[in-house]
Amino acid sequence: MCTSVNSDASAPLRIVVIGAGNVASHLAPAIESSGVGAVVQVYSRKLQSARELTRKLQNAQAIDSEAAICDDAEVYLVSLVDDAIGPLVSRMPKRGNALWLHTSGSVGMEVLAPMSERYGVFYPLQTFSKGVEVDVSKVPLFIEGCTSGVEEEIRRFATPVFSHIYHADSHTRRMMHISAVFACNFTNYLWTIASELLKKEDLPFEVLHPLLEETLKKAFAVSPEKGQTGPAVRGDLAIVNKHLSVLDGQSKEIYSLLSEAIISHHHSFGK
Amino acid sequence: MCTSVNSDASAPLRIVVIGAGNVASHLAPAIESSGVGAVVQVYSRKLQSARELTRKLQNAQAIDSEAAICDDAEVYLVSLVDDAIGPLVSRMPKRGNALWLHTSGSVGMEVLAPMSERYGVFYPLQTFSKGVEVDVSKVPLFIEGCTSGVEEEIRRFATPVFSHIYHADSHTRRMMHISAVFACNFTNYLWTIASELLKKEDLPFEVLHPLLEETLKKAFAVSPEKGQTGPAVRGDLAIVNKHLSVLDGQSKEIYSLLSEAIISHHHSFGK
Repeated sequence: MCTSVNSDASAPLRIVVIGAGNVASHLAPAIESSGVGAVVQVYSRKLQSARELTRKLQNAQAIDSEAAICDDAEVYLVSLVDDAIGPLVSRMPKRGNALWLHTSGSVGMEVLAPMSERYGVFYPLQTFSKGVEVDVSKVPLFIEGCTSGVEEEIRRFATPVFSHIYHADSHTRRMMHISAVFACNFTNYLWTIASELLKKEDLPFEVLHPLLEETLKKAFAVSPEKGQTGPAVRGDLAIVNKHLSVLDGQSKEIYSLLSEAIISHHHSFGK
Repeated sequence: MCTSVNSDASAPLRIVVIGAGNVASHLAPAIESSGVGAVVQVYSRKLQSARELTRKLQNAQAIDSEAAICDDAEVYLVSLVDDAIGPLVSRMPKRGNALWLHTSGSVGMEVLAPMSERYGVFYPLQTFSKGVEVDVSKVPLFIEGCTSGVEEEIRRFATPVFSHIYHADSHTRRMMHISAVFACNFTNYLWTIASELLKKEDLPFEVLHPLLEETLKKAFAVSPEKGQTGPAVRGDLAIVNKHLSVLDGQSKEIYSLLSEAIISHHHSFGK
């Protein structure tokens, strides 16, 4: 009962979304809004999560049973925690020649090979949290198809939704994902530490807002390397050590390691 | 020859700026533009640095000799690397009752006590780099005076320049400085790492811009703690380990330590 993606270019593609996490919750409504696809089912192990997502969709069914995943959709969009993708695929019967895509930065596309002759990757480089709106059209999307024809199909599918679509193979995508972990996830955790230090002084995180905006603006304007400031890049070890003396636990370890790294990065002329 | 700060409220205060680094280079022109002060001298160990700054000022003399620092200014603004402040003060003759201020987040105000009866701290919470414009009026300024009267004087001096002026004692100021090091300096270094990882894949840092903007927007909107995303907070150890396997050196150590910290911060329910 599989219909080729190309059978009727004007009708929205019938899509099954597997996973109802942060990424799926932003992609599925954006795909429907673009008109390129209609989500027919959202699968999640937690029915409640699937239902939360289907409430944002036009006519999708929420399911929590893998066996209930229909076999006649045209696109299966797998947006699960990375190490859940392989096990799911190993339990599912093959879905003819439907287009199978996953959204992971760090999993090779071959994990989907058992499902179909047509598979690939659909990786949006962005941080998504439920309840925080994102303009998906501005997000860079990195795609990879199992053949150049399939990649072209993926590109056509993505074009109504995304404005910036790039090819990336598995290695490049993984390195991009790692760089995003440093640039976004770790950065955000450093802000969490900063916010907790301020809270102990009864100061709100807001007091740092101008500093954070300026830091980002400067990194964009002159590159992060040239925009580096602070005690470590100045080689001001008296301050580094004074700061270490009032920190403890993991914050102290992080302060120490990052200061060492900045010093060795910026003061390694003689090496 | 010292004139009290209050002698003629309408005339600009005669200011000596000691130091010509990133902070001085932004503060001195902003103070002159506000009309509250006129910089008469800029001292730097490097005459070239002093001259670069005096070119942005109306009528200031560039000097590189401590002995040439005049004794009749009304405000001495010390903006040196932290561990240079004490040694400078110990070499300088006392300057009557002029107002002495330093701009450090991590040095107590008492370091200036040998110079004058009127001293305090003038700490702008911002990242400054030469050549990158900053709207100083939006920067939060943290002040402390050796007496409440002196603090009031510092506040009057700062009011034409800054819109957000707060009192902070040495302890609070230091904790704020430490939080700024995490939130700004360390964050910027993580962006440097990300940028280098991308460079190896021939990808420009710009590909991360939407992600970084969104990360900041989300941290402001819902707090960094609630906005945390990524493999570590999901407990996705397969990805964490896969990423570690392709990193080396300090980047690997940083990835490992920050992932552990995120996991223990967000998954410590049972502790």
